[in-house]
Amino acid sequence: MDALGIALIGCGTVGTGVAKILLERGERMLSRAGRPLELRRIVVRDPVRPRDPAIPTTLITTDFSTVLSDPNVHVVVELVGGTQKARQFVLESLHAGKHVVTANKALLAEHGTEVFEAARQNERTVAFEASVAGGVPIIAAIGQSLAANQVTSIQGILNGTSNFILTAMADKGQSYADALAEAQRLGYAEADPTLDVDGSDAAHKLGVLARLGFGIDVPMASIERIGIDRIDATDLKFAQELGYVIKLLAEAWLNQGQVAMHVAPVLLRRNSMLAQVRGAYNAIQVMGDVVGETLYMGPGAGMMPTASSVVADLIDLAVGRAQRTFQQLRLWEASAQGFSLRSNDTVTSRFYLRLQVDDRPGMLAEVARVLASHQISIASVIQHEPRDTTGAQSVPLVIMTHAAPTGGFRRALDTINQLPGVHAPCVWYSVAD
Amino acid sequence: MDALGIALIGCGTVGTGVAKILLERGERMLSRAGRPLELRRIVVRDPVRPRDPAIPTTLITTDFSTVLSDPNVHVVVELVGGTQKARQFVLESLHAGKHVVTANKALLAEHGTEVFEAARQNERTVAFEASVAGGVPIIAAIGQSLAANQVTSIQGILNGTSNFILTAMADKGQSYADALAEAQRLGYAEADPTLDVDGSDAAHKLGVLARLGFGIDVPMASIERIGIDRIDATDLKFAQELGYVIKLLAEAWLNQGQVAMHVAPVLLRRNSMLAQVRGAYNAIQVMGDVVGETLYMGPGAGMMPTASSVVADLIDLAVGRAQRTFQQLRLWEASAQGFSLRSNDTVTSRFYLRLQVDDRPGMLAEVARVLASHQISIASVIQHEPRDTTGAQSVPLVIMTHAAPTGGFRRALDTINQLPGVHAPCVWYSVAD
Repeated sequence: MDALGIALIGCGTVGTGVAKILLERGERMLSRAGRPLELRRIVVRDPVRPRDPAIPTTLITTDFSTVLSDPNVHVVVELVGGTQKARQFVLESLHAGKHVVTANKALLAEHGTEVFEAARQNERTVAFEASVAGGVPIIAAIGQSLAANQVTSIQGILNGTSNFILTAMADKGQSYADALAEAQRLGYAEADPTLDVDGSDAAHKLGVLARLGFGIDVPMASIERIGIDRIDATDLKFAQELGYVIKLLAEAWLNQGQVAMHVAPVLLRRNSMLAQVRGAYNAIQVMGDVVGETLYMGPGAGMMPTASSVVADLIDLAVGRAQRTFQQLRLWEASAQGFSLRSNDTVTSRFYLRLQVDDRPGMLAEVARVLASHQISIASVIQHEPRDTTGAQSVPLVIMTHAAPTGGFRRALDTINQLPGVHAPCVWYSVAD
Repeated sequence: MDALGIALIGCGTVGTGVAKILLERGERMLSRAGRPLELRRIVVRDPVRPRDPAIPTTLITTDFSTVLSDPNVHVVVELVGGTQKARQFVLESLHAGKHVVTANKALLAEHGTEVFEAARQNERTVAFEASVAGGVPIIAAIGQSLAANQVTSIQGILNGTSNFILTAMADKGQSYADALAEAQRLGYAEADPTLDVDGSDAAHKLGVLARLGFGIDVPMASIERIGIDRIDATDLKFAQELGYVIKLLAEAWLNQGQVAMHVAPVLLRRNSMLAQVRGAYNAIQVMGDVVGETLYMGPGAGMMPTASSVVADLIDLAVGRAQRTFQQLRLWEASAQGFSLRSNDTVTSRFYLRLQVDDRPGMLAEVARVLASHQISIASVIQHEPRDTTGAQSVPLVIMTHAAPTGGFRRALDTINQLPGVHAPCVWYSVAD
């Protein structure tokens, strides 16, 4: 069978990994795909930038139009990132009759409808296994392997940088600033880590998974997100004392035909599977109405893990599977029936609440009274004696509630933050169990 | 598009689950498969046995030949189990031009070559996601999602019954006999649990995974297996004291072009992912040379989890993916290049060794000398004072070694079992880390 001709747009970390596999593992690719996977062009901005010696300079070009006009390029692999240029490259590729493989969750989360519509118009395929959770085959799991199921919930550790920082804080008792600095030193966090630590990256990935699992088209702005950038080591310690760990989770739940979603630090029981996911790993727990609970874990980023998923998509295209999957999934299709979005206020959860309160009698009673007036009952309390008995003005008070609707809890919180003797604002996280 | 016509052979637990999904979720199936999945016949031995009221008696027949001769049956789902009749049903179905979906690991492990050859001869497909680890999509993961990789190791908790018993023993301090009785009472173990607890079932599943991951055709007799049926609660306790848990693992490793495999109770570090897999869950950790470490977890058996995988295969067939995957994987193909089998004696591991020794000076020194003479060094030792100081004749001595080849360790063990003062045979397990 004829070779599958491939062009890469972007030759950074992941692009270099993809190029190396295609160039150095030709025999394996032939055996897995049944035809050669031939890398024909690599489009870059700066042709003279030093690159891995495995990348032949003869493949390098700055002229994207040569890709569009080359009938021997069947697939464009978009690895430039961002949403502006990437969108243009992807749309032009599809209109020129190329299939597209992309690792770009921001592009799909923000312009998915347009991209998939262009693919359908041109009878071409967009494959995006690498867009969520790096080397973890979560797109295939939800899109194909769980096809007998209606997905009922998705809970994911989808940002390796945040998970690395939280793991370091919990294990070594580091502050957020110290753990971030170490993550940057080791290459797990970028110089500007904002999109990773504020929850935006995880929200993009959750957006992609929610569309796949629930057929829901979620404006990014409507996904509530709380990052780890304001997390305090104190709360990791109290969580530990209660038998929990704190992880940045991206969660979506289906309930009575509606889907609620958020990205937030969440308390997980110490012996749960997601609680064990350490360092830069990603993991996704998916509940299906037929299968029950399943979990998928692996490296969430990096050159070779992400390249593994990109190349899996290329093999799927070469074999002809990806085209059938894409046709069948009807992703982002205007007419496809999906679920509607539900307010997080209606989601029921347990809550962790830490208040700094004046060290005087009756504080716990007052807080408990407010919670009770919102039908929230208390499951456990931690209040230690102040270490410094001479001059301590305030003490931490930690409360774990029983399950209650988020909206009611938030209203109670507004009142608690106004109580005399409470040093507002209180810290709170939801508890997954 | 025309309906995909389906016949079930066998209507026990899983068959009932598959029938219910096909009959009650028709609209979902149509949307996922792009065409109706139509259940046309259910072949059973005993037509009058009481069944789930959801199963229409009009579909029930005892005559398999009506399936073969019905041109509107495109797929035969084999769920009878065992290897004799199942083999016959599957081969006849393929020769009659039907695709086959099966959950039968024993059939594939023992007659895979014949079954797959018959499929190729007749240009039909055999799909078998449900044959390993119930609802966990491990066949798709290794066969498709990790296609860019050479798998380098597989470590799986593949028998839910064994894992349920080991979890109960560790959590509640139960004896093996008590935990087994509880598992039987709750339906997690059969009246005759032999194939589950002696490692045979896990070995069959490992055989299927090893062929998929390594292209190796392994005679079942050549997979070393140690079950959990002789496990002693004492060793679970010592393992815990050392920071480990004991799990029944099915393992295969690729090393220098050869594959070693076994099924055995293995010590796992308490905070490893596989150590967290509790009760009847299954999990498989797969290392790929590109992606690194990935893990897949879910319910390992049961009506609906297994049905979820069977129906995923049916949808794959309806969409046309399964046919392409089957063609491409060239499974069990005589000419396909695989790896050769390697003796477990060459596998390097750490070891846990528990001896019952006379309570006299010098015993540890003698055991250590034998280990040293086989170049095995000791990492840690537990020797408690005997509880009963009045009449204790022997005490347990627990040794964790550093890494050493299994062959050398076994030879050392032979010598240690002969030592005066050692109450042979010693108990030993390998340590995964």
